[in-house]
Amino acid sequence: MVTLYGMRDSGNCYKPRLLLHKLGRPFRHVEVNALDGSTRRQEFLALNANGRVPLLEIEDGRRIAESNAILLYLAEGTQFIPANVYERGLVYQWLFFEQYSHEPYVAVRRALMRFPERQKDATPERLAQTLKLGTDALAVMDKQLGATPFMAGTTLSVADIALYAYTYDAHQYGFELEQFPAVSAWLQRVEADPGHVPEDWVPTEEA
Amino acid sequence: MVTLYGMRDSGNCYKPRLLLHKLGRPFRHVEVNALDGSTRRQEFLALNANGRVPLLEIEDGRRIAESNAILLYLAEGTQFIPANVYERGLVYQWLFFEQYSHEPYVAVRRALMRFPERQKDATPERLAQTLKLGTDALAVMDKQLGATPFMAGTTLSVADIALYAYTYDAHQYGFELEQFPAVSAWLQRVEADPGHVPEDWVPTEEA
Repeated sequence: MVTLYGMRDSGNCYKPRLLLHKLGRPFRHVEVNALDGSTRRQEFLALNANGRVPLLEIEDGRRIAESNAILLYLAEGTQFIPANVYERGLVYQWLFFEQYSHEPYVAVRRALMRFPERQKDATPERLAQTLKLGTDALAVMDKQLGATPFMAGTTLSVADIALYAYTYDAHQYGFELEQFPAVSAWLQRVEADPGHVPEDWVPTEEA
Repeated sequence: MVTLYGMRDSGNCYKPRLLLHKLGRPFRHVEVNALDGSTRRQEFLALNANGRVPLLEIEDGRRIAESNAILLYLAEGTQFIPANVYERGLVYQWLFFEQYSHEPYVAVRRALMRFPERQKDATPERLAQTLKLGTDALAVMDKQLGATPFMAGTTLSVADIALYAYTYDAHQYGFELEQFPAVSAWLQRVEADPGHVPEDWVPTEEA
């Protein structure tokens, strides 16, 4: 069984949890708090030199970091990565878009507003910048989702899982999702897809 | 023949150029200036709604954006993506590391210091932050390269191409590469690999 080091209240950690649940693949959840310095302690840095969660540990003890890399690794050979080479290219495109143009604004604004530990960084300038650039990212998604039901085409892929993780609750942090009807309709499609679980779901310990 | 929209003086655009040259695959280069607003004009936004280069256009006119997505798309089935599924996971890991933990500091500091168009953003705080966090990223690379000759193992992959693009000239922007001997030795290994070309190389027009 694989082990996932992660935090319940983190969209990046939610991504592989949601995929593993959809795949029906059992895993062990190890809670690691990314806000209190736990990911920067020597014990954790020995597991991931870049000091971040999520981190996947496979059966033989080897590890893979980076949420979207974990998605690609786990989804290999499944319905969540398209068989067509061009569509696979689009999945890669949207995964990198998520980490470069969406997460640094939508997720960072969420963290600045949600976590007392991040409050010192929540300057008016930073809040305005994350709102503006996060809204730009949602507009790019809305354009794609006006053309195709899912980010990379006609079926749900890991690109949808990655982008869902910080989009579904973005309205709680000032993003006006009603401006983006195609994004709103897509959120409902993702939630209706088999095997959906909410962000705070983790597997129960076996007896 | 594929077309690559890109800027000569951009590490992100250098990545697919270097890979295409290594693959011996001819392509057409279309210069697009990312500093003068060209990527935000309607004509270009019709090609890439996210308004960025590089952008790959394949023979039938379909397009893929995001430098590291283009690398994965072009390298499929070649020596630049490992056949082993775990090693492929590591390639994904380092590609996302590059876009999240390296490029936003090492490349952004380069742009702030190099391009007059970016000078207004080059505050002392931003320069200090990009130096500190970029140095952290180089330290993570140095740890990996002390253990394996290339980022994801024993052979050069697209992860090395992606990380090379903004590491090779980082010393010109205040990053002390002599602190990171494994990174310095790796730069030489990448440059000695067959088919290497410098950043400003573009294919010559056919007669």
